[in-house]
Amino acid sequence: MSKAQESINKPVIVLVRPQLGQNIGKSARAMLNFGLTEMRLVAPRDGWPNPDAGPSASGADEVLERAQVFDTAEHAIADCSTVFAATVRRRDLVMPVVDPVEMANQIAQSSHRSAILFGPERSGLETDEVALANAIVIVPINPGFASLNLAQAVILLAYEWSKRSALAQPPAKDLEPPAPHGELEGLIGQLDDALVAKGYFHPPSRTQATRNTIRTIFSKTSWSSREVKAVRGIIRALVNPPRQRRH
Amino acid sequence: MSKAQESINKPVIVLVRPQLGQNIGKSARAMLNFGLTEMRLVAPRDGWPNPDAGPSASGADEVLERAQVFDTAEHAIADCSTVFAATVRRRDLVMPVVDPVEMANQIAQSSHRSAILFGPERSGLETDEVALANAIVIVPINPGFASLNLAQAVILLAYEWSKRSALAQPPAKDLEPPAPHGELEGLIGQLDDALVAKGYFHPPSRTQATRNTIRTIFSKTSWSSREVKAVRGIIRALVNPPRQRRH
Repeated sequence: MSKAQESINKPVIVLVRPQLGQNIGKSARAMLNFGLTEMRLVAPRDGWPNPDAGPSASGADEVLERAQVFDTAEHAIADCSTVFAATVRRRDLVMPVVDPVEMANQIAQSSHRSAILFGPERSGLETDEVALANAIVIVPINPGFASLNLAQAVILLAYEWSKRSALAQPPAKDLEPPAPHGELEGLIGQLDDALVAKGYFHPPSRTQATRNTIRTIFSKTSWSSREVKAVRGIIRALVNPPRQRRH
Repeated sequence: MSKAQESINKPVIVLVRPQLGQNIGKSARAMLNFGLTEMRLVAPRDGWPNPDAGPSASGADEVLERAQVFDTAEHAIADCSTVFAATVRRRDLVMPVVDPVEMANQIAQSSHRSAILFGPERSGLETDEVALANAIVIVPINPGFASLNLAQAVILLAYEWSKRSALAQPPAKDLEPPAPHGELEGLIGQLDDALVAKGYFHPPSRTQATRNTIRTIFSKTSWSSREVKAVRGIIRALVNPPRQRRH
């Protein structure tokens, strides 16, 4: 993805009439955690800049410094083609309702700028503001306890966007591959020898069944070569203690 | 899905040495937004109950009232078979690293209790606490600005769990379930005692690292209770041979 394309695919986060500077700061922090940098503020209650925002942003100052202020939601999204309205409930509007995953898909597929509108802390977006959007996005939450605050709504949608975007890298698999079967056989053979020497297999009629059980147990471990070696060292130590150490 | 099954698939949220009551309250709110209700606290800095927690929970009082307190992370997860350690960075541990989606899949597929460990606000989990887990879960965030607070980490993993749980099918019953964590601890403890007696841990400066390696090796085995018992019998036989048999 080109730099320009990546920038297009980063949704603008629009906070409509936010009340507390703290929540603006927390939203900036939530955004930057997932690589979003463009915040727009519509008629923030206490003006802008707001001295309470910075301390709550925990270092996401670049988001706050670049924030732009607009007088209406309509003006704030004038350059955006794909707009979502984040709400906690359906409205009396005939509009598509999507979940965060579908929102992220639509943003990723959009070849133009997109935006997500968030309403004021208490009341949420006005119906005519929701109507500006192409779709409503609802985070599916516990119907018995729906209590998402502004920054939490921002972080969940930013997270879902980042998963879908090029920025999201799956964690590298630094898992060691399971050891080849021959190495596991070596371990089982060593253990078998030690158990024979210790008189473990008894009575003789049960020996084969016990051996099968041991094989099953050690075949399901998914140990790497390094781990097989370590376990072999452990068995060796249990059977033949390392030479006495000075303490 | 039966009620009991649903309860099993809800991960326990374990806050290890949380510092601020506010953050415990916010975490409870984050949990309940996505239907999680079982919180466990390991040695909360300011004791428990904490008067700062309630106001920050915004009504998630049932989570706080039911919270249980433990003295160590190990005790808090003793009844859990599948344990994830939430960290922001890789550790010097050879352990599986999963993203939140994979974590949610594994929890949904588990037929026994699961838990997610979160460390203290500033420092995160200690390495020996991470080593208790079956896997590390990392939320992929902006490498240039990684600033997730405790409740944000909780809400993102709870959200991801809730998305997967709606689709969760009861796991197939034909495999023996993995042993609860406490049984694995019993095995590791027995092995440790035997290795100490045999002078295996040397030099002392490497002992903790070696212990972590052993814990990691035996935490990935997926052994059932029956198999854990069998391995304990094997260790016993290697250390103290059964009484001499007549051949």
